[in-house]
Amino acid sequence: MARVSQAHLDARRRQILDGAALCFARGGFHATSVQDVLKEIGLSAGAVYRYFDGKDELIEAVVGEVLEVLRQVCADAAVAIPPPLPDVLVSRALTRLREIRPGVLDGGAWAYPRLILQVWAEIVRDAEPAARVHAGHDAVRASWERVVASYRAAGLIPRSADADAMARVMIALAQGLVAQEAVLGGMPEETLVNGLRALMSMRDPRS
Amino acid sequence: MARVSQAHLDARRRQILDGAALCFARGGFHATSVQDVLKEIGLSAGAVYRYFDGKDELIEAVVGEVLEVLRQVCADAAVAIPPPLPDVLVSRALTRLREIRPGVLDGGAWAYPRLILQVWAEIVRDAEPAARVHAGHDAVRASWERVVASYRAAGLIPRSADADAMARVMIALAQGLVAQEAVLGGMPEETLVNGLRALMSMRDPRS
Repeated sequence: MARVSQAHLDARRRQILDGAALCFARGGFHATSVQDVLKEIGLSAGAVYRYFDGKDELIEAVVGEVLEVLRQVCADAAVAIPPPLPDVLVSRALTRLREIRPGVLDGGAWAYPRLILQVWAEIVRDAEPAARVHAGHDAVRASWERVVASYRAAGLIPRSADADAMARVMIALAQGLVAQEAVLGGMPEETLVNGLRALMSMRDPRS
Repeated sequence: MARVSQAHLDARRRQILDGAALCFARGGFHATSVQDVLKEIGLSAGAVYRYFDGKDELIEAVVGEVLEVLRQVCADAAVAIPPPLPDVLVSRALTRLREIRPGVLDGGAWAYPRLILQVWAEIVRDAEPAARVHAGHDAVRASWERVVASYRAAGLIPRSADADAMARVMIALAQGLVAQEAVLGGMPEETLVNGLRALMSMRDPRS
């Protein structure tokens, strides 16, 4: 058997994972077969089964990657000094998500938001991935809480502001941007930045 | 045949729709059969087919209701005087969503967020419901733009603020809260209000 370089093995694995991610993004986990994935990437079953035992292992790997990418983007954001304001932070996180998996393009459109949506839809059906996603979310939440703590340290929010609540609301916003991009198409970065700035500029007559 | 009152017919239709909504919320549209719905509500196929022609018509009716409920909640919010601030507005919209369909409870837990998630997952797979959801979204967006316009008229945001962008960001936030509730469990109303207030209280050193 010819010697195959590690780089070749890694590239092949990447090709399979990106192809599987595309198929799952388009059709969901339930309705997508290993055959669909083979057709997408143009490889034989043998070539794929060398890397993955079957559909469950493919799903596992794809979902694991999504979670790892999200964790990494948030962790990077959390250590930036000075802390980027929410509009910059959220749009930077989305840009980075886009750059980190360039292979997941469906007819030129970025398929990651649809993939994340399918992960969510799968979670609410199945308790097992849900447990792993909860753990992934805890890591994301911890990162955002560090960002908010640094806003407070820099005097950008009042000392009395509820930092944990702010972190949860910012995570919800990021989740909503992903959902909106998947369902209705992406929002230009300028719209996101302007919209968040308008929200932050709001005068609160109660306070 | 005994005369059946309109109230009885309406109640039966409501029972079928709520049962179908529960099944779709749990299992998604693809993996749920009409048999699953019959089992959930404890009715015969004949009783259900008097109201709906099959699974596609059930999906159509359930999705149509979700969109109508969202549209109504947003339209009500848009005409409130004085305009409620975003934290009050968003939490009120979520409370109203909860009240409007009390029958959709799954073991005590409110199944609507999971149902909405399944609608989104279905949309990215199928172009036909996508077109209807886009139309529904346009109505929602118009409502939120009216709310933001009234913030501006009341001097709560600067005249220079981008109202359309703010409306889109607020819709994304509402979408994200629904996703977060479905995937990770709901956020207490106090957390939502405190988190959004913290975001609004942020000092922007750039402006």
